[in-house]
Amino acid sequence: MSVPVRVLGIDPGLQCTGFGVVEIEGSTLHYVASGTIRTTSGVALGDLPNRLKIIFDGVREVAERYQPTQASCEIVFVNVNPQSTLLLGQARGAALTALVTAGLPVAEYTALQMKKSVVGHGHARKEQIQEMVMRLLRLPGLPGKDAADALGLAITHAHAGGSFAAMAQATDLKRRTHAQFKGGRTY
Amino acid sequence: MSVPVRVLGIDPGLQCTGFGVVEIEGSTLHYVASGTIRTTSGVALGDLPNRLKIIFDGVREVAERYQPTQASCEIVFVNVNPQSTLLLGQARGAALTALVTAGLPVAEYTALQMKKSVVGHGHARKEQIQEMVMRLLRLPGLPGKDAADALGLAITHAHAGGSFAAMAQATDLKRRTHAQFKGGRTY
Repeated sequence: MSVPVRVLGIDPGLQCTGFGVVEIEGSTLHYVASGTIRTTSGVALGDLPNRLKIIFDGVREVAERYQPTQASCEIVFVNVNPQSTLLLGQARGAALTALVTAGLPVAEYTALQMKKSVVGHGHARKEQIQEMVMRLLRLPGLPGKDAADALGLAITHAHAGGSFAAMAQATDLKRRTHAQFKGGRTY
Repeated sequence: MSVPVRVLGIDPGLQCTGFGVVEIEGSTLHYVASGTIRTTSGVALGDLPNRLKIIFDGVREVAERYQPTQASCEIVFVNVNPQSTLLLGQARGAALTALVTAGLPVAEYTALQMKKSVVGHGHARKEQIQEMVMRLLRLPGLPGKDAADALGLAITHAHAGGSFAAMAQATDLKRRTHAQFKGGRTY
């Protein structure tokens, strides 16, 4: 008997945070839901605290609605513009906080790891990710770009799990450490 | 009749987040509490999601215990090390999210504004901030450096309030916009 595993993928951004939920059943992946959380309307763009609240509340709402058992979040990188790096960091901080306060174990992967896992090589274009996500999840049409990235992160986590299900919880810590090592992150 | 105003100052950091609570009564400031939230024990240093959770939970706990009505958070700047900037951004994102999900209006000030407001000039050393915070709040001894910065941010917000109390809520948005302009932030 395998325990059902549902992975919530999150592609964090200050303007737009993508989410995608995938269920793992044996070696088959099923699409559950995907979409984007936008902070560009209903709040002043200069009101950073309340834009972060939209991200936090949005991620928590997705987690409550779709009841994932694991989370997979993109490791963001330093931007050419340091101010953008700082803003992206704060957005990611709000998203990660939402995941972890929702009780979800969080694995982290770089965009490179996601592309390799979903498309097969690290130089994949956005359109190729959308195309492969559509095929892997047997979707009737292309997902949006942010949602495709988030679904790609969920798929990456599923692929990284080896024999998923029961193993998933036990190996989460190892996978995260591995992800960080590959991404060259040190805290 | 003046409405009592309690300001929670937050000096965010990934390793150590300082907090300080100050009550405003007419033109007098009263010390309520201060301390630090540390993420350097009880959790693996590489486990960023759970370190952010410690910051979020810590700020929420302080807010629940001391019941502030306003928050004042330091605007952080780009570090020489871009990776540190990203980590500081994520820590600040967790702290801001905690404040705003606790229902607190958040004002933002730069370290320069805090030093000018507390010490009188922007080149103040850490020790001068501790000394002035001790005097302004009539403390029996010097507060720790992180706690002093957080108390300094609460004092800065109190000073910026002009005729505090009832005005405080109404002028919060204006003050924040002002703080951002002075700090040269654009989102």
